[in-house]
Amino acid sequence: MFFHRKELQYHAKPDRPDPVYAKKLQEILGGQYGEMSVAMQYLFQGWNARGEEKYKDLIMDTGTEELGHIEMISTMIARLLDDAPVNEQEKAAENPIIEAALGGMNPHHAIVSGLGAMPENSTGVPWNAGYIVASGNLITDFRANLNAESQGRLQVARLYEMTNDNGVKKMLSFLLARDTMHQNQWIAALKELEEKYGTTVPGTVPEEWEATDFSYDLMNFSAGEESRDGGWASGKTPDGHGKFGYVETPEAHGGKQELKPAPSYMHGTPPK
Amino acid sequence: MFFHRKELQYHAKPDRPDPVYAKKLQEILGGQYGEMSVAMQYLFQGWNARGEEKYKDLIMDTGTEELGHIEMISTMIARLLDDAPVNEQEKAAENPIIEAALGGMNPHHAIVSGLGAMPENSTGVPWNAGYIVASGNLITDFRANLNAESQGRLQVARLYEMTNDNGVKKMLSFLLARDTMHQNQWIAALKELEEKYGTTVPGTVPEEWEATDFSYDLMNFSAGEESRDGGWASGKTPDGHGKFGYVETPEAHGGKQELKPAPSYMHGTPPK
Amino acid sequence: MFFHRKELQYHAKPDRPDPVYAKKLQEILGGQYGEMSVAMQYLFQGWNARGEEKYKDLIMDTGTEELGHIEMISTMIARLLDDAPVNEQEKAAENPIIEAALGGMNPHHAIVSGLGAMPENSTGVPWNAGYIVASGNLITDFRANLNAESQGRLQVARLYEMTNDNGVKKMLSFLLARDTMHQNQWIAALKELEEKYGTTVPGTVPEEWEATDFSYDLMNFSAGEESRDGGWASGKTPDGHGKFGYVETPEAHGGKQELKPAPSYMHGTPPK
Amino acid sequence: MFFHRKELQYHAKPDRPDPVYAKKLQEILGGQYGEMSVAMQYLFQGWNARGEEKYKDLIMDTGTEELGHIEMISTMIARLLDDAPVNEQEKAAENPIIEAALGGMNPHHAIVSGLGAMPENSTGVPWNAGYIVASGNLITDFRANLNAESQGRLQVARLYEMTNDNGVKKMLSFLLARDTMHQNQWIAALKELEEKYGTTVPGTVPEEWEATDFSYDLMNFSAGEESRDGGWASGKTPDGHGKFGYVETPEAHGGKQELKPAPSYMHGTPPK
Amino acid sequence: MFFHRKELQYHAKPDRPDPVYAKKLQEILGGQYGEMSVAMQYLFQGWNARGEEKYKDLIMDTGTEELGHIEMISTMIARLLDDAPVNEQEKAAENPIIEAALGGMNPHHAIVSGLGAMPENSTGVPWNAGYIVASGNLITDFRANLNAESQGRLQVARLYEMTNDNGVKKMLSFLLARDTMHQNQWIAALKELEEKYGTTVPGTVPEEWEATDFSYDLMNFSAGEESRDGGWASGKTPDGHGKFGYVETPEAHGGKQELKPAPSYMHGTPPK
Amino acid sequence: MFFHRKELQYHAKPDRPDPVYAKKLQEILGGQYGEMSVAMQYLFQGWNARGEEKYKDLIMDTGTEELGHIEMISTMIARLLDDAPVNEQEKAAENPIIEAALGGMNPHHAIVSGLGAMPENSTGVPWNAGYIVASGNLITDFRANLNAESQGRLQVARLYEMTNDNGVKKMLSFLLARDTMHQNQWIAALKELEEKYGTTVPGTVPEEWEATDFSYDLMNFSAGEESRDGGWASGKTPDGHGKFGYVETPEAHGGKQELKPAPSYMHGTPPK
Repeated sequence: MFFHRKELQYHAKPDRPDPVYAKKLQEILGGQYGEMSVAMQYLFQGWNARGEEKYKDLIMDTGTEELGHIEMISTMIARLLDDAPVNEQEKAAENPIIEAALGGMNPHHAIVSGLGAMPENSTGVPWNAGYIVASGNLITDFRANLNAESQGRLQVARLYEMTNDNGVKKMLSFLLARDTMHQNQWIAALKELEEKYGTTVPGTVPEEWEATDFSYDLMNFSAGEESRDGGWASGKTPDGHGKFGYVETPEAHGGKQELKPAPSYMHGTPPK
Repeated sequence: MFFHRKELQYHAKPDRPDPVYAKKLQEILGGQYGEMSVAMQYLFQGWNARGEEKYKDLIMDTGTEELGHIEMISTMIARLLDDAPVNEQEKAAENPIIEAALGGMNPHHAIVSGLGAMPENSTGVPWNAGYIVASGNLITDFRANLNAESQGRLQVARLYEMTNDNGVKKMLSFLLARDTMHQNQWIAALKELEEKYGTTVPGTVPEEWEATDFSYDLMNFSAGEESRDGGWASGKTPDGHGKFGYVETPEAHGGKQELKPAPSYMHGTPPK
Repeated sequence: MFFHRKELQYHAKPDRPDPVYAKKLQEILGGQYGEMSVAMQYLFQGWNARGEEKYKDLIMDTGTEELGHIEMISTMIARLLDDAPVNEQEKAAENPIIEAALGGMNPHHAIVSGLGAMPENSTGVPWNAGYIVASGNLITDFRANLNAESQGRLQVARLYEMTNDNGVKKMLSFLLARDTMHQNQWIAALKELEEKYGTTVPGTVPEEWEATDFSYDLMNFSAGEESRDGGWASGKTPDGHGKFGYVETPEAHGGKQELKPAPSYMHGTPPK
Repeated sequence: MFFHRKELQYHAKPDRPDPVYAKKLQEILGGQYGEMSVAMQYLFQGWNARGEEKYKDLIMDTGTEELGHIEMISTMIARLLDDAPVNEQEKAAENPIIEAALGGMNPHHAIVSGLGAMPENSTGVPWNAGYIVASGNLITDFRANLNAESQGRLQVARLYEMTNDNGVKKMLSFLLARDTMHQNQWIAALKELEEKYGTTVPGTVPEEWEATDFSYDLMNFSAGEESRDGGWASGKTPDGHGKFGYVETPEAHGGKQELKPAPSYMHGTPPK
Repeated sequence: MFFHRKELQYHAKPDRPDPVYAKKLQEILGGQYGEMSVAMQYLFQGWNARGEEKYKDLIMDTGTEELGHIEMISTMIARLLDDAPVNEQEKAAENPIIEAALGGMNPHHAIVSGLGAMPENSTGVPWNAGYIVASGNLITDFRANLNAESQGRLQVARLYEMTNDNGVKKMLSFLLARDTMHQNQWIAALKELEEKYGTTVPGTVPEEWEATDFSYDLMNFSAGEESRDGGWASGKTPDGHGKFGYVETPEAHGGKQELKPAPSYMHGTPPK
Repeated sequence: MFFHRKELQYHAKPDRPDPVYAKKLQEILGGQYGEMSVAMQYLFQGWNARGEEKYKDLIMDTGTEELGHIEMISTMIARLLDDAPVNEQEKAAENPIIEAALGGMNPHHAIVSGLGAMPENSTGVPWNAGYIVASGNLITDFRANLNAESQGRLQVARLYEMTNDNGVKKMLSFLLARDTMHQNQWIAALKELEEKYGTTVPGTVPEEWEATDFSYDLMNFSAGEESRDGGWASGKTPDGHGKFGYVETPEAHGGKQELKPAPSYMHGTPPK
């Protein structure tokens, strides 16, 4: 069960409206690695968690915080859109600044939401749940979370480069900080889990299920052997069970790719 | 530039047709973490790579291999569909085995592809590129890759549990092995990169950009303090720059979430 | 800013597992009118609200409650999946109950989420934000809300018909009740708003913008005149500004649908 | 069965080409509440209608008219694109008007459709049938229709603000008028249906199915009690069956959100 | 402008309900090559046509007919769903026929549409406009149309194999016939257009734009030279301008795939 | 199994960066008819092929080549993005060229991919597998291929018109040439297949399945008889089995579109 407080977690006031930047900011709201993604990913992971309570609580703490981040960025977008001059075509024809504002806006901000945030990314594609995962295996899910927070912080850093507005930068500085925390927390939690269950996911696969001859070899499918020169091509493997090998010329083990003729009731191309 | 050999990388021959299982196997072909996802993710990362050649080569080796995995699983699906009794409604009414085969099939396997693989997941949703990422930052991308290989191996293990067919198991044993390698290789590459550039991504954000007061605190947004008990709530942070803290009662720093009235030309609800 | 309590708003315990029903229940979690839709629709409306505080608060109260409904239904789905016999193919061949459980399941529940809820509908299509709206005009948005709660309650009633499980029915009885409240609340709020701003949305369009000759006529584009017999074809219009008319044979006012030849640099079919 | 006349229902001739505005106009053609949505929504409702003939005829009259509106807006878009200077990059470098035309265009109008309308919205997202509904219950469907016509008219009003072209305004004036009619007709039809079947949808749910203790209370999940001040928090409910209540501090009735450990064959995180 | 007659173009009455088959039939209603696709594809081609009137009229004739086909198949689906036993779980537990009906149904037919057709395909994926094309070049569009009618007729033939119901077969026999006509008509129209404008689309590309050394060679990128044995590897080319060649070992002409280092403000992986 | 060479098939070096054009070029990479579509379409056709080896080899030759085309266009896009001035807002305010570069860019190129290609089209919509087909019937699939290569070459020609950059034109000249070859090859292959199996797909439908009275008539559903004047309305049909007819006033053969009342357990609108 959730409760809402009306105050924002952190400042979300731009120094001045900027409808073009509002469009770009949509990426970290409704994009592949935006706040909708992390909030929903964590909440589903928490609700589906079937293991230790402390992991579940950690996930729910973070997922609930992210709901507040959607709120902050939505607020910032709406404020960047304040008084966007969408009806000033005539002035735009003469004034390059108004023209730029009109030309670079997301049309949805004017036509659909009436100067509010949209649940979509910076190119106007609606958020969808194909972005997220909750698998029931915490090691792999925390790897997904670590990636999400890393992609997220990278995008925030790029957006920071793309503005001069100190109010916007203030909000971004907070997101940079929280993404630092979240990266560190998932790394710490992964360390703990990997020590218990191993680094290869899932750790519960019996050895006899696996074609172990192929478990530790890098196969050179792209001409050139630059890839031989790295910690992944020789030495002990991180999971502690093998040694990396390098296969210069990968072989085919599986016979020709060919199929039986189709039955006539499928109306395909008849066999020769 | 790519070249193709007609032999499969590994065996992909089921002991017997099984159209219901063919539907399930679609998940690791065209699902969120299927082979289409890893192939396309790695190839885009490779083509976009702007850094050291050895990483690019590693990525291209792996991406090119994954193209061959799409091929193997496609072949297996087509063979599991051999002679699927899609026109035997009358027998199905009497024979529960035929009935099960008809009822549990993906209708696309009969109507659209004519007993061939589909570029879609186990519920029939087409693959889409919103699943993948290539960001230009290798640490976060390799984290995405590590997650993808972990989710992928988890799904293969589950599918292994769901079949008795030794031919299918043989192919899955190979995928388990290659996913073991790929998890290990991305871990090894991450170790190298993180040692150079730090664990917090991106490592190039100047400290003054960040609201560092908030960089290392876990905030307790979900009632209960089970989350206090873990390596993420006290002690040194993995990035080496801070100490974890725990905020029992997170505060609001951002003022009330409220917006200016809308301009009349937006035709929203008028202000009071 | 949001806070989470670990207790559920209402009971979500089935009497027994039922993985086939779990698939159906996904519709009111991640379908077009599921709880993800109403939660996200209301929250975006609240964050974008630029009018009177009491409407905004009403919206946020309801949106925050709906987050708790996603949680309840997710929990119910996970419990319906407890111990789903996904690895018992051999028994299924003999036991029609196990067979039905395997055949009718959403494969994602076994392969992707590991017996947890998925953010998708009953056919396995991921939720997407194209389902929701927040326009900045509360009358039309509350109409959207009234529709969503009506579609939602209709779907809950149908799902109630489709189960014998008293634990499931208990949860559905609560959802039926809350949807009753939410329909009534949006009707009450609409009454208040329509009295102030009129029933035709938006009420701020100047009369001279409108081709008023066509504002109140039903046009008979489908052969047969059964549609003449209703309150929409004669008498005063609900907005109080006109009288309904009925046009038996609609006319074309707009000239032929024809276009200029394409310029040659578009490489279309050349003009005759 | 349908027949087509070549004349347009109303004028669709702009005074002059304007490829930037053509992009915006796509919203009411192929957007969430564009003409493709209302046409398809009404036609599916009509084809699926299992009740009184007069409602079915009303729906088919309107759905068939909307097909003609898709035609009008498509025509307008194509005419706004006449001779769009897509090959004049050199002039654009010097001439800000040509530059604006090129920069603000939907690239599909040049590359894909060759100066024709696209079945997509103003950000270039293709129309999809997840926007529409036909539930078999006319009260809720007419609520969906009333919402669609309200959102549609709101978007037309906003687009009217965004142009100076009298030819465009003429077409929009007709759409404003028809949306006025369609809002009024659905209100009138709803009045008739609600009088017969009640305002809470569906009216056929037996009282004993419902947890009626929760049917009429507003729950205060967002801090602050501004929402207490409205017709939805006290007094008789619109359905005539209850009295609104207000719950200041909503309680949890459902016990802790926790799940059984996962079975080992799911390869999730092992229980503690 | 469109008009509607209430009679169906052809018979659409099944001999008996069959909710499992209703799900399959959705493919030719709302699938990639279903009637929604051809109707919308043709109508957009017609509205965007900028060439000779007779082609535009041919397209509009056919597109308008297809609207009637959506109607026929929708009707058939609704009738196949008549009295679907969605509330008979208890009987299903004992009666394999009821069980099959429940297990094989599209859940949307029960929960969302209330026993009506859905605008989606046989796996429950909503129709979307990314399936269709209207390019402004009639030769390529008629090729798209010929393909659509061919895929469509193939799917109808497969669905014919999958039923014993004479009423269903009657409707399919009509669709087979109309698809025969439509294939023949597009072939005839293509013949006429190709004679005028050539077979290579677009015929208006100046020769000097093209790297003509590569215009007629088959390149052997897949090991094995079976592809050498066909009319595409030697002899005159269909466009009459060249002779087919065969390149046994395709060469790379483009230099190494490598990129400049990224600028630091992108926060990617730093150069070595 | 696939192998990769690091050299590009052809030159992909622009004379100078142009981030606005990079956005447009995405269409032929990740659009409906971009290189991802043809590569994936051909590979799935090849893997699913159940007929003569020479067709399968032809398909795999071409599909493998197209993988190299994705690579070329990705490379070109990344090079067009070199040093895009995404952090130069201040200069943009004064310098219209920088402003245009920023305003017309795809925001994903800056925020998501870090100056690399995206797997999406020119409006930023991700590629999805609903674009492609592999049906098991080669005649219809080769028609799909012929269409894809025709749409593709048309789009390349339009993009050629839209640039002055000789490096870009050089790459496009190669794509024009390869699309010429691919159109010619599919025409040649179709000729061979149609001679064997007939032009109406599928050629295996028994005559008694078809309502042959309707197999060769053009029906005049759009007012005006311009469509009578063409090779599709009179004379022998291309399949050699009939004569075209023309039906001036199409009739309804199917009775009224009406349905039985819904059962009460569906909670639809009650019958009158």
